[in-house]
Amino acid sequence: MAKVTVGVPQGTRDFGPDVVRKRNYIFNTIRSVFELYGFEPLETPAMENLDTLMGKYGEEGDKLIFRVLDSGNPFQIDFIKGLLNYLISFRNDIVHANPNIEGFKGFEFLQTLIDHPTVIVSLANQLSTDVNLAKKYLSPLKNQTSGKALKYDLTIPFARYVAMNHKNLTFPFKRYQIQPVWRADRPQKGRYREFYQCDADVVGSNSLLNEVELANIYATVFDKLKVNAEIRINSRKILTALAELCGSANRMMDITIAIDKIDKIGLDKVKQELIEKQLNEEQVGIIEKYLLIARYSGDNDTIIAELKKLFTDNVTGIEGVNDIQFIFDNTSHLAFTSKIYVDPTLARGLNYYTGCIFEVKALNVQMGSIGGGGRYDDLTGLFGVPNIPGVGISFGVDRIYDVMEELKLFPSEVHVSTQVLFFNLGEAEGKAAFTLMQQLRDKNIRCELYHEPVKFDKQFKYAEKKNIPYVIIIGSKELQEKTCVIKDIRKGEQQAIPVNKITEFSFM
Amino acid sequence: MAKVTVGVPQGTRDFGPDVVRKRNYIFNTIRSVFELYGFEPLETPAMENLDTLMGKYGEEGDKLIFRVLDSGNPFQIDFIKGLLNYLISFRNDIVHANPNIEGFKGFEFLQTLIDHPTVIVSLANQLSTDVNLAKKYLSPLKNQTSGKALKYDLTIPFARYVAMNHKNLTFPFKRYQIQPVWRADRPQKGRYREFYQCDADVVGSNSLLNEVELANIYATVFDKLKVNAEIRINSRKILTALAELCGSANRMMDITIAIDKIDKIGLDKVKQELIEKQLNEEQVGIIEKYLLIARYSGDNDTIIAELKKLFTDNVTGIEGVNDIQFIFDNTSHLAFTSKIYVDPTLARGLNYYTGCIFEVKALNVQMGSIGGGGRYDDLTGLFGVPNIPGVGISFGVDRIYDVMEELKLFPSEVHVSTQVLFFNLGEAEGKAAFTLMQQLRDKNIRCELYHEPVKFDKQFKYAEKKNIPYVIIIGSKELQEKTCVIKDIRKGEQQAIPVNKITEFSFM
Repeated sequence: MAKVTVGVPQGTRDFGPDVVRKRNYIFNTIRSVFELYGFEPLETPAMENLDTLMGKYGEEGDKLIFRVLDSGNPFQIDFIKGLLNYLISFRNDIVHANPNIEGFKGFEFLQTLIDHPTVIVSLANQLSTDVNLAKKYLSPLKNQTSGKALKYDLTIPFARYVAMNHKNLTFPFKRYQIQPVWRADRPQKGRYREFYQCDADVVGSNSLLNEVELANIYATVFDKLKVNAEIRINSRKILTALAELCGSANRMMDITIAIDKIDKIGLDKVKQELIEKQLNEEQVGIIEKYLLIARYSGDNDTIIAELKKLFTDNVTGIEGVNDIQFIFDNTSHLAFTSKIYVDPTLARGLNYYTGCIFEVKALNVQMGSIGGGGRYDDLTGLFGVPNIPGVGISFGVDRIYDVMEELKLFPSEVHVSTQVLFFNLGEAEGKAAFTLMQQLRDKNIRCELYHEPVKFDKQFKYAEKKNIPYVIIIGSKELQEKTCVIKDIRKGEQQAIPVNKITEFSFM
Repeated sequence: MAKVTVGVPQGTRDFGPDVVRKRNYIFNTIRSVFELYGFEPLETPAMENLDTLMGKYGEEGDKLIFRVLDSGNPFQIDFIKGLLNYLISFRNDIVHANPNIEGFKGFEFLQTLIDHPTVIVSLANQLSTDVNLAKKYLSPLKNQTSGKALKYDLTIPFARYVAMNHKNLTFPFKRYQIQPVWRADRPQKGRYREFYQCDADVVGSNSLLNEVELANIYATVFDKLKVNAEIRINSRKILTALAELCGSANRMMDITIAIDKIDKIGLDKVKQELIEKQLNEEQVGIIEKYLLIARYSGDNDTIIAELKKLFTDNVTGIEGVNDIQFIFDNTSHLAFTSKIYVDPTLARGLNYYTGCIFEVKALNVQMGSIGGGGRYDDLTGLFGVPNIPGVGISFGVDRIYDVMEELKLFPSEVHVSTQVLFFNLGEAEGKAAFTLMQQLRDKNIRCELYHEPVKFDKQFKYAEKKNIPYVIIIGSKELQEKTCVIKDIRKGEQQAIPVNKITEFSFM
C-alpha cells in the first residue's frame, strides 16, 4: 500500500485525550451552571437547510457558510443544473435578442465541449488564475450549489427551532446549547473553521430578572473555573439615547460601530472615525463627554449618576440607565469574585441587540473578550413567528481554554485518566486482577490490567507515560497470601494489603 | 417579513430538552464506564479531507459520503476546474485524433455557451430526467467536487489520527470516541443521516485481555443502564476454519455473509443461498453441522466442546475456539447480569474482522443488535503505517434509547430539570430570592425565580409544565419573619421554615 499523506482539513483540529479532558472540564462546568439556573439543553443538527441560514449573517457571513452537497442524489443533478442555468441567467437577454438561435441541440452542445478539450483547459486555466474574471462569471453560482449547509452559529438554528415548536414550548423558554459550528473563514491563530459555541438564551420574556440571572451565570462559571473576570454591562438604549442627544437618531449604528473599537484604537481614533462618518464637532463633543464617563470605571454608582445627569431629559436614556441599575442592584449583594462593571464604552459592534449588553474580560492576561451577549427584540420574526423577545449570553470556550492554560488553572485531576495499573504477572494472577478491578470500578476507581506479562520495566514505563499514579502488583506469593502490593508512583512508596481491604484504600 | 416554511434537513433531528437529558444519561453512562476501564477520549473534526475517506467503505459507502464545498475558496475554482477537466478526461483521446482542433480559444468557448442558452437548458433537462445518461457523463465528477467531506464513521478518522500521531502515542492506545457521523442514506424509520457513534478501541496489542475487558465493558454498561442484554461472541478464525473444512478457504467471505443472515432468514434459506453461491451438498452439510451446534445456546461449555470436536485437526479453528474459551474463562467468574454466550452463528457480515467478534442483543424486546465489534489485523496500513492491530466495540445509541423507552428504563430524575421554582411576589421579595437561590445552587440544587410578579395560577402552571417538584414562596410576611414556604407539588404538602435552614432541606 502506497504511503498516503494524511492530515485534517485546514482550520480544523483533532483533540487528543488530555485536551479533551481539559475542554470537558470547561464544558461540564458551564453546563452544570446553566442547569443550576434552570436552563434546559437543546441540540440541533449540524446541517440546516440552506434557506434557513442564507441572508441571516450579512453578505460577508453568507460567504462563510459551508455548503453540503446532497450526495443522496447520486449524480448531483441539481448542482449541474444550477451551474448550467447560471451560465444562461446572466445573459438571458441574448435569447430575446436572437430568437433564431436554436442552432445545435442537446448533445450537440456536449459534443462541442468534447470536441474542443483544449478550449476547456484554456478556460479553466483562465478562470483559475484571474480572480476577477472568475468572480464575474461564477460567484452567483454559490447559492445554487446545494440545499444544505453546516450551521454557522447556534442562534439561527435556535430561532428556527422555536419558530417550529413555539406552540408546544413553555415560555419563558430557557435553553442552553453547546455544539460545534463551522465557518469558512481564513484560518489563523485562534480562529478555526470548526469550533464550539456555548450559548444560553431566555426567550419569551421582557423581564430584567433574566439579565440578572445571566450575569450571575457568568459570575458563577468564572468563580468555579477560578478565572478572575469582570462582567461589563451597558445598554443599547443608552447608545440610542446618545444618538438622539446628538440630534441624529438614525446614526446610532455608526456611533455604536465606532465606539466598539475604543479598546483597540483609543478615544482619539474613535473621534476621528466619527468625523470621517460626517458627524460634526458638537456631536463628537457630546460623544466624547459620554465616553469620558468611563474614567470612573469601577465606581458603578458614580457612573450611573453621571449617565443620569447626561440623559436627564431623554426617556430612552433614563430607561437604559435604570435597566443597568436594576441589574447592578440585584447582583451587588451576592458574594461572587467576578464583579459587574457598568461600562459606557461597551457597544457590541454589529450585533442586533436592543437592550442590555454584556461582555466578559479575563483579568491578569492579554486576551479578547471571553463572553458576550445581550437583549434582542425579535428572535423568530425571520421565520414567520413575531413578538418573541429574548436575551442571551455566550462563552468563548477556546479563549477560556487559552486563559486557563496560561494561568495554569486546570486542576491536576484533569490530567489523570487511569488511576490504578495492575501489573501483569501471568494468567492466574491476571484472573485475580479482573476480580479486584471490578471491585474498584464499582467504587468508581478507574483501573486497567497491563495487556501482557512482560518485564516490570516496560509496565512501569506505560504507567509513567499515561500519568497513572498507582500500580498494583499481584504475584504468585501475593496470590497465595491473598494480598497485593500497592505502589504510589509519585511518592515512590509501597505497601502490601489484604485483597479484601482493597476497596477501602484511598487512591487519591 | 414573509412567512418562511421551516424544517430540518431530511434524516436529521432536533433533540429537545427531555430527549437530550435521556440521551446524555446513556452517553454519560457509557463514557464513565469507558473511563473506568482506562480508555481515553478522542475527538476528531466533523470534516475530513475527501481522500482520507474515499475508497474506505466500498463502492456503496463512497456514494453515501456527504461532500462539503470549499466555500473558503470563494469562487469554487477547484470545483469548476474539476467539472471542466472531467469533460475533457473521458474523451481525451479526441485531442490525439484531431491535433488541429484548436479552433476557438478561451472566452470564445464561454461565448458559445452564452450564445446558445437553449442548448444548455435542453442539455440540463436531458441530464436531469435521464439518469443513465447523467450517470455516464457525470458520475466520475463526484470525486472532484470538493476536498472535504463529513465523516462517515469514527474508525477511519481514528485510523488517520493514529497514523498521524503514532510516534507520540503510548501503545496499547485505548481510545473512546462519542461523536456524530453523517451518511447520505435514504432516511427511514430508525435510520438517520446524522447519528452518533460510540466506539472504544484498543490498538497496538494482540492480547486477548483486551477482548476480555471489552466484553466486561459491555456487561458493565448494560448493567448500569438496567438493560438485560446478552453478549454473543464468536471468532472469524472459526469461520475461516469452517471454510477450510469445506475445502475452499477462499469462500470464507461468501460463507460468512450467508451465515450472517441466519437470524433474519433462518437455516433453510442460508443453505439455499450457499447452494446458489455454488457450494456443493457436502460443503453445505458441513456448514449445517457447524450451525447446528448453536442448539446448545446458553451452555457455553458444550458449545466449546462441540467446536473443538469439529475442528480437531484444524489449527486455525482450534486457535479460534481457544480464544473464545479464554474470554469466557476470564469473564464467567464476574458477577454481571449480562452474560456472554458463545454463538457459532454470529458472523458480523461484511466487516473486515480477523479474530474475535462481538454482538449484543437486548432481551425482552424486539430490536436489532445494540452493540457490535471485533478484532482487526491492521488499522492504519491504509495510511502508510502498517502493523497496528486492534480490537474495538461500539454501542448503538439510538437503539439503546428505543429499548430503554420501550421498557421504561430511564430513571425518573432524568425528567427533572429545575428542582425548585421561587414564586415572584415583587421586587424586594425577588432580591431575597436571589440570595437564597445562590445558597441552594452552592449545594447543587437547580432553581429559578419566576420572571414576573403575576398571579400564582400562572406561576404554578409554569412549575407543572416544566415538571418542577418544589415551589418556594416568599411574600412580605415571610420576608419580615425571615421564613419561606416550601411546597411539594407532587405530594401537595407545604411547610414554612426559617430561611437560614433552607440549605438543610432535602429537595428530593
